[in-house]
Amino acid sequence: MNPKLINSIEEMSTIRRQLKGKIGFIPTMGFLHEGHLSLVSAAEKQSDIVIVSIFVNPTQFNVNEDLSNYPRNIERDIELLSNMKVNYIFFPTDEQMYPEGFKTWVNVDKITQVLCGISRPTHFRGVTTIVAKLMNIIDPDLMFMGEKDFQQLVVLKQMVKDLNFRTKIVGCSIVREEDGLALSSRNKYLTNEGRKKALCLNKSLLLAQKLFSEDIRSSNKIISQMTILIEDNEGIIDYIEVIDQESLEHISELKSGCRIALAIIVENTRLIDNIKII
Amino acid sequence: MNPKLINSIEEMSTIRRQLKGKIGFIPTMGFLHEGHLSLVSAAEKQSDIVIVSIFVNPTQFNVNEDLSNYPRNIERDIELLSNMKVNYIFFPTDEQMYPEGFKTWVNVDKITQVLCGISRPTHFRGVTTIVAKLMNIIDPDLMFMGEKDFQQLVVLKQMVKDLNFRTKIVGCSIVREEDGLALSSRNKYLTNEGRKKALCLNKSLLLAQKLFSEDIRSSNKIISQMTILIEDNEGIIDYIEVIDQESLEHISELKSGCRIALAIIVENTRLIDNIKII
Repeated sequence: MNPKLINSIEEMSTIRRQLKGKIGFIPTMGFLHEGHLSLVSAAEKQSDIVIVSIFVNPTQFNVNEDLSNYPRNIERDIELLSNMKVNYIFFPTDEQMYPEGFKTWVNVDKITQVLCGISRPTHFRGVTTIVAKLMNIIDPDLMFMGEKDFQQLVVLKQMVKDLNFRTKIVGCSIVREEDGLALSSRNKYLTNEGRKKALCLNKSLLLAQKLFSEDIRSSNKIISQMTILIEDNEGIIDYIEVIDQESLEHISELKSGCRIALAIIVENTRLIDNIKII
Repeated sequence: MNPKLINSIEEMSTIRRQLKGKIGFIPTMGFLHEGHLSLVSAAEKQSDIVIVSIFVNPTQFNVNEDLSNYPRNIERDIELLSNMKVNYIFFPTDEQMYPEGFKTWVNVDKITQVLCGISRPTHFRGVTTIVAKLMNIIDPDLMFMGEKDFQQLVVLKQMVKDLNFRTKIVGCSIVREEDGLALSSRNKYLTNEGRKKALCLNKSLLLAQKLFSEDIRSSNKIISQMTILIEDNEGIIDYIEVIDQESLEHISELKSGCRIALAIIVENTRLIDNIKII
């Protein structure tokens, strides 16, 4: 089907008010890959109407980050979505979303100040603010998000709960290449060689699961083994953390149901991944 | 009519989704007076369904402020609202609105850091957060607020605009006693003598308007005259400011359409008032 393209907030709001049925929403920054498309598939199954937003949100990039050369390809995105049951694509301009004089921010405390929040101090404030805006414009019943950005998922669930948004957030599994690399728009930055090195993220997480299965429980021991594997592949570690899935607090002894999250720099590109220990 | 009393967020949300027509909403902290009732009257005229919330919001009080002895009289509030066309009274508990682990805040920059924001640094963060929550629960078409809390009105309009809430905020004129004292739940704290002294707020604002009509334009000159009048009445000045109505920025020369806002302490009670210069 051909999704209707909407680039004005007012038009989106007006159309939304005329829609009936369950609305499934997928917020994206475009440059879509199979990870995004898996979210669209989930939305198709659980909703009557599917809305995808494409907006490279400037406020979630830190000043030294890759906003200007963040990959974009709106024509290809539209084509990909046209092959699925997407009813509307919302792609507003920066000027509409952040008009002159904009000065309101949604902040989630504590859980935004760990993990990725340490090297990206204003990132989550940008994420929560743009998602609050999009939820107010689109008023979805369900919002679909990937577990690759695990901290983002936890932060947004906290925001939805605390601010009483009626939207339910549905977390969806990480989609990986056959060799295990988690899909990410940033993978595009990697050379062929970097692409191979980047496998260390998933490999180290699988190693952790293996060690856990062999009854090793110490977070420190497991992180040490992961560190060796990653550094052998020339990955530079931003963080590796064993965490509680809800509080994101550090856990010193692994247990079933906890999560290991990491951020690794490969060829100047910062990649993230995580695993739920079972 | 007898308004239906609702004290659960879930019940309020469920009922809301079944309502049709234009919803008018008045958020209050209870201990209602004619100022609040004038907002209800405005809502009656402009809406199909009127919802009033009563919630003494702890997060908008600073630590040294009067939360614990803030005046409350829910029975009287219900009685007053029963004499009007109010459909629902929403009065949730603190535990529901701020459950354990609550950690999300809405912040409006700049315009919350002037005027009342100087002596009440976390006040507006509490106001914007609770109103965001209430708007998400009640999803009103119109929200009615008094101009007495002028900075609050400007801050909330900014939040609604920036975060794309669909609600329209309707500002309503200040309601005054016959002698000019602006109605406030805090007037209850005043002795008979303090009540008389407190007239200096409105009198000094009327003096400013009179001086403007006599072609005096200098903010400093006008504030000096106001200061004399207030100090003669034993009022302690927190601030007197001539401001732009939208940016809340200081203006050095009065002009038609600007506003003068002040906060004065009378008998340990901090009272605010303002006037639009015409």
